[in-house]
Amino acid sequence: LVVKKQDPAIERDLHLALEDLFYGCTKKMKISRRVMNEDGHTSSIKDKILSIDVKPGWKQGTRIKFEKEGDQGPNCIPADIVFVVQEKPHPWFSRQQDDLIYTSHIDLEKALTGFSVEIQTLDGRFINVPVNDIVHPKYTKIVPGEGMPMSRDPSQKGNLIIQFEIHFPEKLSADRKRLVRQALAH
Amino acid sequence: LVVKKQDPAIERDLHLALEDLFYGCTKKMKISRRVMNEDGHTSSIKDKILSIDVKPGWKQGTRIKFEKEGDQGPNCIPADIVFVVQEKPHPWFSRQQDDLIYTSHIDLEKALTGFSVEIQTLDGRFINVPVNDIVHPKYTKIVPGEGMPMSRDPSQKGNLIIQFEIHFPEKLSADRKRLVRQALAH
Repeated sequence: LVVKKQDPAIERDLHLALEDLFYGCTKKMKISRRVMNEDGHTSSIKDKILSIDVKPGWKQGTRIKFEKEGDQGPNCIPADIVFVVQEKPHPWFSRQQDDLIYTSHIDLEKALTGFSVEIQTLDGRFINVPVNDIVHPKYTKIVPGEGMPMSRDPSQKGNLIIQFEIHFPEKLSADRKRLVRQALAH
Repeated sequence: LVVKKQDPAIERDLHLALEDLFYGCTKKMKISRRVMNEDGHTSSIKDKILSIDVKPGWKQGTRIKFEKEGDQGPNCIPADIVFVVQEKPHPWFSRQQDDLIYTSHIDLEKALTGFSVEIQTLDGRFINVPVNDIVHPKYTKIVPGEGMPMSRDPSQKGNLIIQFEIHFPEKLSADRKRLVRQALAH
C-alpha cells in the first residue's frame, strides 16, 4: 500500500485592473508542470493554459482553485493551484468593498462657494457632480449606483464616494484677511 | 530528586495617568499570595505590598518584574509577577512616544486670519502659542520641549504637537460668498 500525500496548494497572484473587475473578463494563465509520461515512471515538463472566468464585482483576495494541477509524481497527488485576486492600483479610483472612492482637489474658494466635479467612470462615461454644500475637510459627496457591481447581482452597484482635499492659500494680505473676516464673521 | 517547575509569569496592568508618567511616582500594589508555613507542608494566603518606582518618561507597555512573588507551593518555584504600564486617557493630550499631541478646534475665520492657542501643560502651566501661518487641515504647530520627559534623560523633553480641527460654516449667503471670492480669488 502506498499512501499518496498531497502537497499544500500553490498560490499565485492574479493582478487585475479595476476595469477587469468591473466588467468581468477571461484571463488565461500559463503554468509549467511536471507530467508523468505514459510509462508511469518518467516525467517531463509541459505547459498548460488555465482559463479563469473573472466575474464582475470580484474583490481583492478572491480565490480561484484548480484542483490537482501541480506537478505529477509517482507517489503523490498533484497540489492544487490557487489564484488570488490582487487589485492593480487605479490612477484615480480606490475601492472600498462595493464603493469607489474618488479624491477631488479643490481650492478653498470653491469649497466655500460651490463648484462641480467631472469624473470619468470605469466604463468611460463622464459624469458631472454639482456640489452646492459647503465642503469641509470631512465632507463626502455620495453618488449612488456609480460604484462597483455587486458580485451576487452585477446589475446592482455600490456608490461613488467623492472626498475632497481642500487647498488653502499659503498667504493672505491684510486686505484679504479683512474680507475673510467680513465674509465669515458670526 | 524533585524537579521544581516555574509557572509562567503573572501579568497585571498598571494604569498610570500621563501626569504620573511625566513626574514619575511610587505606586504601591497589594497582591494576595499563597505562602508556605514554617512546617513546610501547609500554606496560607497572605497579602503583600509591592512598591513600583515609576520613572519619568516610562511608556505604555513598560514591564516591571518582581521575581518569584507568585504562589508558593511545596514543589514549585513561585511565578514572577509582571506589571505592564497602561496609559490612562488624558482629557486633552494624547502621546506619541516622547511627543504630546493636542487638538485645537478653531473656526475657519481664525485659521485664515491668525489666532493663539492657550494650553495647560501637564505640570499645570498655561502656555500661549500664537499661530500666524494660515492653518490648513494638515498643518501642525510644533512647540519644542513641551512634550514628555525622555526616560534616558528626563531633563530632555519631546515636543508638543498642536493639530487643528477647522470648523467650516454650514451655510453662506450670496453676499458672503461674494466676499469669499474677493478674498480668495487668485
